[in-house]
Amino acid sequence: MQIITFLTDFGTNNGYVAQMKGVAASETYARLIDITHNITPQNIRQGAFILQTTAPYYPPGTIHIAVVDPGVGTDRRGIVVTTRTQVLIGPDNGLLIPAARTLGDFAVYEIKNPKYTSKLISNTFHGRDIFTPVACHIINEIPFDEIGPIINDYMDLDFGKTDVTDKTATGKVIYIDSFGDIITNIDGNKLKHVVEFDKKIMVFIGKKQQKMSFVKTYDMVKKGEILATIGSSNYLEISINQGNAAKKLGIKPDDDVKILFS
Amino acid sequence: MQIITFLTDFGTNNGYVAQMKGVAASETYARLIDITHNITPQNIRQGAFILQTTAPYYPPGTIHIAVVDPGVGTDRRGIVVTTRTQVLIGPDNGLLIPAARTLGDFAVYEIKNPKYTSKLISNTFHGRDIFTPVACHIINEIPFDEIGPIINDYMDLDFGKTDVTDKTATGKVIYIDSFGDIITNIDGNKLKHVVEFDKKIMVFIGKKQQKMSFVKTYDMVKKGEILATIGSSNYLEISINQGNAAKKLGIKPDDDVKILFS
Amino acid sequence: MQIITFLTDFGTNNGYVAQMKGVAASETYARLIDITHNITPQNIRQGAFILQTTAPYYPPGTIHIAVVDPGVGTDRRGIVVTTRTQVLIGPDNGLLIPAARTLGDFAVYEIKNPKYTSKLISNTFHGRDIFTPVACHIINEIPFDEIGPIINDYMDLDFGKTDVTDKTATGKVIYIDSFGDIITNIDGNKLKHVVEFDKKIMVFIGKKQQKMSFVKTYDMVKKGEILATIGSSNYLEISINQGNAAKKLGIKPDDDVKILFS
Repeated sequence: MQIITFLTDFGTNNGYVAQMKGVAASETYARLIDITHNITPQNIRQGAFILQTTAPYYPPGTIHIAVVDPGVGTDRRGIVVTTRTQVLIGPDNGLLIPAARTLGDFAVYEIKNPKYTSKLISNTFHGRDIFTPVACHIINEIPFDEIGPIINDYMDLDFGKTDVTDKTATGKVIYIDSFGDIITNIDGNKLKHVVEFDKKIMVFIGKKQQKMSFVKTYDMVKKGEILATIGSSNYLEISINQGNAAKKLGIKPDDDVKILFS
Repeated sequence: MQIITFLTDFGTNNGYVAQMKGVAASETYARLIDITHNITPQNIRQGAFILQTTAPYYPPGTIHIAVVDPGVGTDRRGIVVTTRTQVLIGPDNGLLIPAARTLGDFAVYEIKNPKYTSKLISNTFHGRDIFTPVACHIINEIPFDEIGPIINDYMDLDFGKTDVTDKTATGKVIYIDSFGDIITNIDGNKLKHVVEFDKKIMVFIGKKQQKMSFVKTYDMVKKGEILATIGSSNYLEISINQGNAAKKLGIKPDDDVKILFS
Repeated sequence: MQIITFLTDFGTNNGYVAQMKGVAASETYARLIDITHNITPQNIRQGAFILQTTAPYYPPGTIHIAVVDPGVGTDRRGIVVTTRTQVLIGPDNGLLIPAARTLGDFAVYEIKNPKYTSKLISNTFHGRDIFTPVACHIINEIPFDEIGPIINDYMDLDFGKTDVTDKTATGKVIYIDSFGDIITNIDGNKLKHVVEFDKKIMVFIGKKQQKMSFVKTYDMVKKGEILATIGSSNYLEISINQGNAAKKLGIKPDDDVKILFS
């Protein structure tokens, strides 16, 4: 019983995702699991981040279809990325690569063989007309090199330049979760080597500047107090204990973050 | 392994849909797939449009339960609609008929036999207490004429009057998707016969009037530019390349659309 | 084919729920069904209400994982609650107890045995690192007393004090659904004994005071008219027939409600 996951920026007030699932359910018995459909429209970096931090929790054989695709209808390529144990399918715009790198040993195939896509391809919906049919064929065990050639000039993507020294860390806001926690691209493991828990740090974020504690858990500060911590995906987060940090500080995705440790 | 889909205007901040799924999962092993639960409350036409454009992607045997039901608790009837290969269940208010017409060869049965509904029927939640139990009985292979009689005076619905001549097209906005694309009820196939791609057209929509290109793909115009195209469901859409057309023009569902081709 | 349901306040614009499902799908073939992920952040009472009104629709053997957990990372305990036929897993903060009481014959086990949780436990995400792994072990049939000891000092919770006399009823708003219906904690069965349908009642809610009819179905009043009724979960609701009562009255969760019957 294999799994196909779906990550898109399509939202959930329409039939787009259900059309993809209908195509998948017509050809396979795979379990169909949503990652999210509420990626900020066309924010490839946010989609890549959530895919990268989520895919490792899935079992061998899982196929992830990801569609954040401002270039749909242009000549941007579609790709299948094989990794050690899982497969990623989507546009060649960097969306899949951070997850592939995390999953390990990856190779990128261009989707070229028209035999494996739907006969009528719309200009605006490759998720339904190309990526999902290809996923079904993979579950039905066609060899990967039947899909198209291996390519090395695929588009890469990182989560924005980050820099951690022994005095400062700089990076960007990736997304805001439903609690108003601000998730950044600053690597928690690197931070741990240069700043101790329970120290005060100075955070410049968006247009605000704020002193706060760097703590191991929310409850190390009082209810309503701001804090910096390492979140469940191992990245720096700015939060308010039982409050909404993003709303209080007026922060949105892509805002800059800078931290001084002294 | 059969499929039951769910389309409602219940939203996703409550337990209503999960109650329907609990009822379904208690009686069948069917795969349970959401179409959407974010239909604009009580907007039957929008629900009908999304059901009609999504159902064709599902395999034979699929049962679609659709509940956009302002008349719940009144004497409006519940119906089961059989089509060539799929089944539709919901209120008799027009919601199911466009999808039935698209799926082909349809017949409408009134839900009358109390044997096939739950014992306690709430006045406000027939999706859980009638439509889902009936779906389970259908999967468990009761004959359709056990449910109730065939009726011919069911309520019909269209997507609003549209008119396409060789000089103009008129219609209405059906819904706005998560990108701010404005989906109308104007048939893309008819349009293609009277206006060529890459021509300029004049669009009157809501309170706005705007010249734009009628294009095959978004990238035929510059980033941030407005355009008209034929969407993935074969209806006219007004979009901004990598922008939000509905927000920029102040458009909402049911607004009028008129196009001049010259 | 067992079922695991998920109820959280995580929202759906991130990968948190999908990470839990990945963990579950790696260890079991259970069907994974969402109750909701849009509980108002950290509103334990709202989560408990939706869990209590939804769980009874699920078949024997179902495991419900519920995470509304402002105390995560503190020393609040994690618990497994067995009931007559279903199991509930989540934080020891009252969230699970109303559902347990409704499902009947319940016992509460503290999650103590580190053998059954994931090796790396984050400070902020016990849903993924503790509750879901425990659910998988339960499906794989470990004895409950392997998880930890039975406890009797678990945290309880009610839906707020309500009082129904033959002249008045008092309570609180629990949540607002997508139609703007205002769901209260006032028991419909108690109400039915003290006030007849089609009587006028006086409702004090939030900062408003409004006379309205207590009716069996929405259509007993005109379109656009306000009404009080007993909803599909058997609690008092304030609604507008085909309108949005919460918006019109400016109501939000936790507002007070008082009704005079004469």
